Amino acid sequence: MPNADQPSRRGRGRRPADQVRAEILTAAGNLLLVEGMAGFTIEKVAAQARASRMTIYKWWPSKGALALDGYFTVVAPTLAFPDTGDIVTDLTSQLVAFVHLLRDTPAGRVISQLIAQAQTDPELAIAYRQRYSGPRRALGVEALNRAVARGQLRADIDPESVVDQLWGACYHRLLVPDQPLTEDFARTLVDNVIRGLR
Amino acid sequence: MPNADQPSRRGRGRRPADQVRAEILTAAGNLLLVEGMAGFTIEKVAAQARASRMTIYKWWPSKGALALDGYFTVVAPTLAFPDTGDIVTDLTSQLVAFVHLLRDTPAGRVISQLIAQAQTDPELAIAYRQRYSGPRRALGVEALNRAVARGQLRADIDPESVVDQLWGACYHRLLVPDQPLTEDFARTLVDNVIRGLR
Repeated sequence: MPNADQPSRRGRGRRPADQVRAEILTAAGNLLLVEGMAGFTIEKVAAQARASRMTIYKWWPSKGALALDGYFTVVAPTLAFPDTGDIVTDLTSQLVAFVHLLRDTPAGRVISQLIAQAQTDPELAIAYRQRYSGPRRALGVEALNRAVARGQLRADIDPESVVDQLWGACYHRLLVPDQPLTEDFARTLVDNVIRGLR
Repeated sequence: MPNADQPSRRGRGRRPADQVRAEILTAAGNLLLVEGMAGFTIEKVAAQARASRMTIYKWWPSKGALALDGYFTVVAPTLAFPDTGDIVTDLTSQLVAFVHLLRDTPAGRVISQLIAQAQTDPELAIAYRQRYSGPRRALGVEALNRAVARGQLRADIDPESVVDQLWGACYHRLLVPDQPLTEDFARTLVDNVIRGLR
């Protein structure tokens, strides 16, 4: 694989590092959604982002790390946490968007296969937690803590366990589909748990 | 592999079919816990249960089906649903036992690898749902419905979603261990959701 970055860009000046990084992440996320982990290679990301493999390895220690940062980047707009001031509205719209992402886009298959592969691949497991699930969990905890600060939820709730009862419950239906992932399910999850946390 | 059943047993008479079936299931469950799916074979189960492979194939269509029925059999006593009459007590003791099983015995690794393998093995996925997760889910739903019948929970609850918010939340921490599986976690899950369902 040639260093695609240099020939085509040198004449017009180098892209700023931030832009290169952003284009690599977008290319990585999109490639993962199209091909899954099975078809994901550093070479393909490099070619699509017009960057060198050396540049990629400078920023990401492994293929899995790049894939997960890319995935986080491309799903982040869909999974943004709204902040309307009402926790039930915000959790419901976020969780409904999450259900649609898992059910109606290639993201569901990609994420279930990443979790599966992480069970027997310790390096991927660490990358998954550090680069995807950990940061996503933190966003959920922040949203719940904002609601506590506003007095919408009790001060003594354990936000971490609520993350498992909302998003974790959806991952459970994704991975073990005894029951369907639906909008109603998302709404019921929020209703069940928020009633008890007020 | 010789037909181990016939030579050693014929003199003392055949075992009743129910007993053979029970011994096969126990052998299968124990073998799975010791060796995981990687080392699980029909031959080894046949040898340990002193049964023929033909007998096993008469009752189970595949290795995965046998493994999952065996697993259900050996974990059933640990995961029994107590029925003291109080739903919080019953769910808490069941869920604490489940957390210990996942965290402190080989069952956690076995179940996470079965769920992982099921993501890319459709036959195993069907066996897992039909022979393990579906029947276990039904036991949880029954326990919740008993509590509704006793007036301990609202009549309009959706028991299926509660299963995902209790056991599903534990599977989530098993598969994506950002946060630890603890007794406190199990108690908090029950507390969070039951407050809202009364």
